[in-house]
Amino acid sequence: MLKASVIGYGYWGPNLARNFNNNPEIQLKWIVDSSSERLRKAFLSYPFVNLSTNISDVLNDDEIDIVAIATPVATHFKLAKDALEAGKHVWVEKPLARSAKEAEELVKIAEKKDRILIVDHTFVYTGAVQKIKELIDKGEIGEVIYYDSLRVNLGLFQTDVNVIWDLAVHDISIIDFIFNGIKVKKIMSVGMTYANHLKESLASINLVLRDNKYIHINVSWISPVKIRLALIGGSKKMIVYDDTEASEKIKVYDRGVEVIQSPEDLYKIWVQYRTGDMWAPKLDNREALAVEVDHFVDCIKNGKKPITDGLAGLKVVEVLEMIDRSLR
Amino acid sequence: MLKASVIGYGYWGPNLARNFNNNPEIQLKWIVDSSSERLRKAFLSYPFVNLSTNISDVLNDDEIDIVAIATPVATHFKLAKDALEAGKHVWVEKPLARSAKEAEELVKIAEKKDRILIVDHTFVYTGAVQKIKELIDKGEIGEVIYYDSLRVNLGLFQTDVNVIWDLAVHDISIIDFIFNGIKVKKIMSVGMTYANHLKESLASINLVLRDNKYIHINVSWISPVKIRLALIGGSKKMIVYDDTEASEKIKVYDRGVEVIQSPEDLYKIWVQYRTGDMWAPKLDNREALAVEVDHFVDCIKNGKKPITDGLAGLKVVEVLEMIDRSLR
Amino acid sequence: MLKASVIGYGYWGPNLARNFNNNPEIQLKWIVDSSSERLRKAFLSYPFVNLSTNISDVLNDDEIDIVAIATPVATHFKLAKDALEAGKHVWVEKPLARSAKEAEELVKIAEKKDRILIVDHTFVYTGAVQKIKELIDKGEIGEVIYYDSLRVNLGLFQTDVNVIWDLAVHDISIIDFIFNGIKVKKIMSVGMTYANHLKESLASINLVLRDNKYIHINVSWISPVKIRLALIGGSKKMIVYDDTEASEKIKVYDRGVEVIQSPEDLYKIWVQYRTGDMWAPKLDNREALAVEVDHFVDCIKNGKKPITDGLAGLKVVEVLEMIDRSLR
Amino acid sequence: MLKASVIGYGYWGPNLARNFNNNPEIQLKWIVDSSSERLRKAFLSYPFVNLSTNISDVLNDDEIDIVAIATPVATHFKLAKDALEAGKHVWVEKPLARSAKEAEELVKIAEKKDRILIVDHTFVYTGAVQKIKELIDKGEIGEVIYYDSLRVNLGLFQTDVNVIWDLAVHDISIIDFIFNGIKVKKIMSVGMTYANHLKESLASINLVLRDNKYIHINVSWISPVKIRLALIGGSKKMIVYDDTEASEKIKVYDRGVEVIQSPEDLYKIWVQYRTGDMWAPKLDNREALAVEVDHFVDCIKNGKKPITDGLAGLKVVEVLEMIDRSLR
Repeated sequence: MLKASVIGYGYWGPNLARNFNNNPEIQLKWIVDSSSERLRKAFLSYPFVNLSTNISDVLNDDEIDIVAIATPVATHFKLAKDALEAGKHVWVEKPLARSAKEAEELVKIAEKKDRILIVDHTFVYTGAVQKIKELIDKGEIGEVIYYDSLRVNLGLFQTDVNVIWDLAVHDISIIDFIFNGIKVKKIMSVGMTYANHLKESLASINLVLRDNKYIHINVSWISPVKIRLALIGGSKKMIVYDDTEASEKIKVYDRGVEVIQSPEDLYKIWVQYRTGDMWAPKLDNREALAVEVDHFVDCIKNGKKPITDGLAGLKVVEVLEMIDRSLR
Repeated sequence: MLKASVIGYGYWGPNLARNFNNNPEIQLKWIVDSSSERLRKAFLSYPFVNLSTNISDVLNDDEIDIVAIATPVATHFKLAKDALEAGKHVWVEKPLARSAKEAEELVKIAEKKDRILIVDHTFVYTGAVQKIKELIDKGEIGEVIYYDSLRVNLGLFQTDVNVIWDLAVHDISIIDFIFNGIKVKKIMSVGMTYANHLKESLASINLVLRDNKYIHINVSWISPVKIRLALIGGSKKMIVYDDTEASEKIKVYDRGVEVIQSPEDLYKIWVQYRTGDMWAPKLDNREALAVEVDHFVDCIKNGKKPITDGLAGLKVVEVLEMIDRSLR
Repeated sequence: MLKASVIGYGYWGPNLARNFNNNPEIQLKWIVDSSSERLRKAFLSYPFVNLSTNISDVLNDDEIDIVAIATPVATHFKLAKDALEAGKHVWVEKPLARSAKEAEELVKIAEKKDRILIVDHTFVYTGAVQKIKELIDKGEIGEVIYYDSLRVNLGLFQTDVNVIWDLAVHDISIIDFIFNGIKVKKIMSVGMTYANHLKESLASINLVLRDNKYIHINVSWISPVKIRLALIGGSKKMIVYDDTEASEKIKVYDRGVEVIQSPEDLYKIWVQYRTGDMWAPKLDNREALAVEVDHFVDCIKNGKKPITDGLAGLKVVEVLEMIDRSLR
Repeated sequence: MLKASVIGYGYWGPNLARNFNNNPEIQLKWIVDSSSERLRKAFLSYPFVNLSTNISDVLNDDEIDIVAIATPVATHFKLAKDALEAGKHVWVEKPLARSAKEAEELVKIAEKKDRILIVDHTFVYTGAVQKIKELIDKGEIGEVIYYDSLRVNLGLFQTDVNVIWDLAVHDISIIDFIFNGIKVKKIMSVGMTYANHLKESLASINLVLRDNKYIHINVSWISPVKIRLALIGGSKKMIVYDDTEASEKIKVYDRGVEVIQSPEDLYKIWVQYRTGDMWAPKLDNREALAVEVDHFVDCIKNGKKPITDGLAGLKVVEVLEMIDRSLR
């Protein structure tokens, strides 16, 4: 039985606590938060768990195997570093850290201490994203031409990160996963700050990857409606991924664009389109966090490398930094 | 009874012919096209109409009041110029011309000849766009912050224009109408060509207007599904305009983002959001083209200036040229 | 070239006129209506067509091959009878007649005079219903268990028929087509009249067919929204047919219910369900009326029996009468 | 602090346990189930709770104030009776009992023992149903004409109840709540059993209430898709209630049907329809069960009568029995 702790019991921490608690191979032992009000809430759900406002209590507890960090981004580095150096396996919410420099150091420490470092890129563990990767890997989509995402809602404005680090991070981690890596060739982004708020609350991001895939990500905290829509165009088929659909989140369209050399004129090419059936594959609909906790346990017990390990977390932070720079 | 002619009977020409024919104050007299196959189709629907492959037949017909041009963009200038100089009132499909220079000359000729020049920015005449303008003008939305449009489909690749001149032109003309003019301060666009096709088939356009409204337009010819979705954010309310909805194309959300000065700390501001009811106003659902033909007749008979006159057409072409330049 | 006439230019007549006019093997020669206002509208669209308020003009015109009847139901019998006896091929709007007795007589006259009698069960000619029949015939759905339809809208109250003869008629004709006949074993219906209106404006119809298929049809003229939704359950797969969808009107679900004999207890059975992929086949999206006019021409020229011939029209009227009786 | 127990930890019991556990005025003390496998699951989530396979442990615990029963319907009567007689406040899942006779006895015992008996008609506590009642009570809808519900899915076939007692029970309880009572004048229902299963798995229910409201309920366990759609027609406005929508579950349409006496002919009436705006009021989106547990606590502490008390539960069971009888 692995013994786990959750640091931070704000927006996302309760989900971690619930999923760690429900995993049959994990015992939830500590919940840490700076707010006594939030600890009171934790107590109502988990009266048997140790509560503290001080992470040292957890780091000094030799029984603890897992430290899960769900605190503001600015604190990730220090907390994760301390936990790794205390010999714990560490789960960090996305993004891994405030900078690539910090992320890189965490990767090194995890390696040196031989501990598992997993970054919670939750979407990677959804049935939908797993299916997209499977379809791409099998060649069913053909060569991927573009990934175009609209991820907007009326958001809680964050004080520590902009909308890119809050929302676009999901697309960057999905892209890194489904395309087996994200190598940026060109980047161009536009952001808008709203109402004296210092952080961008709306942004349009354009990337060209080294293999010429075109990426467009449109994120906003000031949309009246919540939209989670990605179009993925391939040379053979195209995918519509709508995460707000209850079922049928993934629709595969047998539609495409074909280039035809004109028979009469060598200098002329024709572009035609073709439409066929649509197909919505059945998806694994287990909660992504539960899948991810299972995977984390498997990595710890069997010394495996997590799908979203520290290096994946580092790559994502690198791209976020590049986007931020391209805004200026 | 005004006597009208339609030049070009390809994709859009039949819609013009049908609406001119159905208007009680117009008699459809000529249909002109270079293809005899298309003229045969025109004959099936309008056996009483004169057919020709030569526009001179129309220009030389003194009875003709109206020349409506629905031919490829490259031909608009020459055809419209000749028709205006022959003393006809002219209807031109969007975009008005290939360049601002051409458009400007058409505006001048129309003025000199005292003829009505209308540009078919069809969306401006829809119940939906009319309602959006009404809501903005009444102040119901508050100050408009952004206009964010996703306009994609699996498209017929055009040989003479790129996706911006084909699809983004709709958003540019809508913006020019609902905001009473479009004055661009900054512009940044990215486009992608597909499969050796020389014209962009996918583009992401960002504009900042002089009054700091932020505009984002995402257009594509290689999307598996057709989407026509614009989000319009105001300081009081926000609009979702989904043109693919059968009814309820316009939804007005009583949602917004409010900036609150922290009472404790003068340097701190809070941004909060608020959600209320949603409201879908009843729209005029007459066919936009029928409304526009009525308006054209009214302008001709009563010497009025069309809502989408030559100057509006010119402004739209100017913005399209700016976008094209910003792509390079 | 077949010469055709359209009798009745109210709600549906213009669609008939347009499709007859667009068919390359038909010349539209006459439009007849009792209202001069409606004839004026017909003239605007078809200035070359002969207009009359008197059907005798058509029946006495020896050139006329086709008489298409789009008048109130009560007049169908007399008009169709006269036209058949004048030796014309006859197209009648649904329902064929006010009673089975009338319908039967029309069938007999058509046979005696060797003329084609087609009933306009338009939905039968849609790509969606054609695909449903194809899927059932191929055995892809397995044995059909039920057909459950919700067909409601805010309707124009009819003075001559109730909501069953106006809306449920569509389902009855679809069922007759996709199941190769409709043989009713049991019937039970409930109707409601609204606001002193003598005709039912809302009804729930239950049929059990001889092969135990269960049919449920829910129709209403007083629904705030338009719904056209049919669920078709089979032993292997199930279909959702949503006619208000722009594309993807047909969705085939690999879902079903399986009966398993309990291995431990012979008296116990288990019912389990299974969910798999969903699939939306590409549909022929030509306008159904155009397809039907083509079919009508083919039947006339080659002496074929129409899919929706007089007998089909008779069967549908018989079922409508049974439903009406079951309401009392 | 009230001390609570949950009897039955199958499909719904875990939701009760979670909501009782999260309520600040309740301490969850016992979970009882006949299956040790299910008790193991309960232990994972609530290691601090007493577990038992025997309800006597709970009834004999003098500290226990609340017994919540989430077991098969057949057991409700015995368990609730014993709990009431042991002086506990009792929460029973819907439907209250297998028969009106049983339900009536429970009501009497609760009264005699002066204990709170609440029936978990969950939908009554949703923001959507609360808003519908508010709109009706305020007169915004006018006089209600009909309630038409489509509640279908691919269901777990129940061995102890049919689809009416499983699904239609929700509509019956909603109707009883929003119309301030359900008094049936006429009833007609049709059901279908599937594949040797003895219980109906598909049913169409028609009720006419004493005030002539028309009710239609269509339920099924063998639909490929989950639909939760009710249309509520009023003389002034109409409501569409779609419970599968993430937000905007309630849409109010300013649409209606008006009866107009013909000015020319006293025997003629005209029925016209009118369409106006649509409006989606903001709803309270707290979890209904949490609201209901709060209400239960309030009733216990302040001696109030629950909205869904034993009498409401009895009325619902009476209607279910009437429907079952009308099937034969």
